[in-house]
Amino acid sequence: MSIRIGILGYGNLGRGVECAVRQNPDMELKAVFTRRDPQNVEILTDSARVCGISRVKEWRDRIDVLILCGGSATDLPQQTPEYAKMFHVVDSFDTHARIPEHFANVDASAKEAGKVAVISAGWDPGMFSLNRMYASAILPEGRDYTFWGRGVSQGHSDAIRRVLGVKDGKQYTIPVESALEAVRNGENPELTARQKHTRECFVVLEDGADAAKVEEEIRTMPDYFSDYDTTVHFISQEELKRDHSEIPHGGFVLRSGVTGWEKEHSHLIEYSLKLDSNPEFTSSIIAAYARAAYRLAMEGQSGCKTVFDIAPAYLSPKSGEELRKTML
Amino acid sequence: MSIRIGILGYGNLGRGVECAVRQNPDMELKAVFTRRDPQNVEILTDSARVCGISRVKEWRDRIDVLILCGGSATDLPQQTPEYAKMFHVVDSFDTHARIPEHFANVDASAKEAGKVAVISAGWDPGMFSLNRMYASAILPEGRDYTFWGRGVSQGHSDAIRRVLGVKDGKQYTIPVESALEAVRNGENPELTARQKHTRECFVVLEDGADAAKVEEEIRTMPDYFSDYDTTVHFISQEELKRDHSEIPHGGFVLRSGVTGWEKEHSHLIEYSLKLDSNPEFTSSIIAAYARAAYRLAMEGQSGCKTVFDIAPAYLSPKSGEELRKTML
Repeated sequence: MSIRIGILGYGNLGRGVECAVRQNPDMELKAVFTRRDPQNVEILTDSARVCGISRVKEWRDRIDVLILCGGSATDLPQQTPEYAKMFHVVDSFDTHARIPEHFANVDASAKEAGKVAVISAGWDPGMFSLNRMYASAILPEGRDYTFWGRGVSQGHSDAIRRVLGVKDGKQYTIPVESALEAVRNGENPELTARQKHTRECFVVLEDGADAAKVEEEIRTMPDYFSDYDTTVHFISQEELKRDHSEIPHGGFVLRSGVTGWEKEHSHLIEYSLKLDSNPEFTSSIIAAYARAAYRLAMEGQSGCKTVFDIAPAYLSPKSGEELRKTML
Repeated sequence: MSIRIGILGYGNLGRGVECAVRQNPDMELKAVFTRRDPQNVEILTDSARVCGISRVKEWRDRIDVLILCGGSATDLPQQTPEYAKMFHVVDSFDTHARIPEHFANVDASAKEAGKVAVISAGWDPGMFSLNRMYASAILPEGRDYTFWGRGVSQGHSDAIRRVLGVKDGKQYTIPVESALEAVRNGENPELTARQKHTRECFVVLEDGADAAKVEEEIRTMPDYFSDYDTTVHFISQEELKRDHSEIPHGGFVLRSGVTGWEKEHSHLIEYSLKLDSNPEFTSSIIAAYARAAYRLAMEGQSGCKTVFDIAPAYLSPKSGEELRKTML
């Protein structure tokens, strides 16, 4: 009777989904598919199998929703359309600029196969998008602001680690408190990248590397750091491991807008997240949308959906009656 | 081509809807229906008519969505089922305990007539409910907290004004900052009514009234004040008018929850509103749900819906394609 889940890709996100499935009594993890040798992949769920990725199609009748936990750069653009031919799927594709193209590809596959595919289920894109959309529909005359952090940016951490002389490193994106306050005060500020976020780097040097040179190279790196006030701290590998092993994140979506015949009243809508583990929180959202995908499929729907297209009630294990009674 | 709107009931909420319709270029206000003598009701929209409530049915073919702006105590339980027989309707019914019953009555009428009826569209119930529901679906193991204020409670202001010796008065509900902070810190506190909110009253006395007696009567009033720390300020009618004529409100919905195999990671989801005008903000939500009701009706749907049942995209004037491109 439970929703049978498969996970494709067993990194931080895949492990997060495994944990999330365990917290949802109406779901059951059946199998994890990996590109690695299954013999070498240890999962947490005793009752689930670990299989090579080539065996996915054998599970067509034993899995209801396949959750795709690959990367957005190269994995998902290929995997989501491919597996939407065999399964109802959910991904957390997060390359904002390429969403329209990804949607079109996935929609074509899923429609042809009569499957439901939910893409970009996470917190940004995902919950942040939902909040931007609800707020702009409610307050048509207003301004949106999104701030990220304090949290680890994987892309910026990778960029640091590519600098010559850097052994390891981690980057935190930090919202500028005074900018947030200006938005909350209804000042509708125009904010540059530099005015919205600062960047803080914790760097482990290679033996004999020139700290001043590394710092200069990081701070002036185009796209990643040159448009921001960036602080670089040099620490030991032990300190990095001890103090910076977690993957926290979060952020703020705000909309400030006006109402009234003469636009005389101001309003502020704010949504914020403070997350100990970015991948586990993302996974928890994915699990809720896996439930939605399953239910939409049971109703005979098909095609690609985003958070905008799915009525909130589909995410909850409670019935409409229970929701109205306890949560409305 | 625009959505033709009617408003039934022209108090603060009705006027708010009139203003909201003006901010939405795809909507047009056609008529306001009132129980008062239409001759004595001045509205703001030149192009709209003011009619007596008995004439509503003559507008069946000239209005797409009728917005019901009466009170939840006695108006809406009767009006929403009645007018759902003739129009697609939206109300902001806010008596939480009676929502299941109201839903059932409205659903029966609307289904029989093939109309769409959206009930309880506002911010609580409404946006706060949505946020409670999304957050609990994402973090199944966690705790919800709702705080209201700082804002004017109409019910408590009315209660003050019924006290002997009180000429006029206004009550503000204020969240306790330290309780909010404890929730934000993930302490998952058990909070009594007194620990969550304080109440602040601004009271104008009748000539010769006994201030100490009035204060005592307010502070010990069961249901309304006795369970709270209540402050009573005596001010003049002029001061009340000058400083307390507006109807601000707001509040906070928080969910604190855990993820991870050993529940080792904590997360906080927070949604908050800071509103200069409670009725105008509620009206803005209603307008967005009027758009949703119209679109659902165009798709051939019928019956009673709440915010839980309506996919977010229906609220926005943007197409699915535009939304994915600009907001996801």
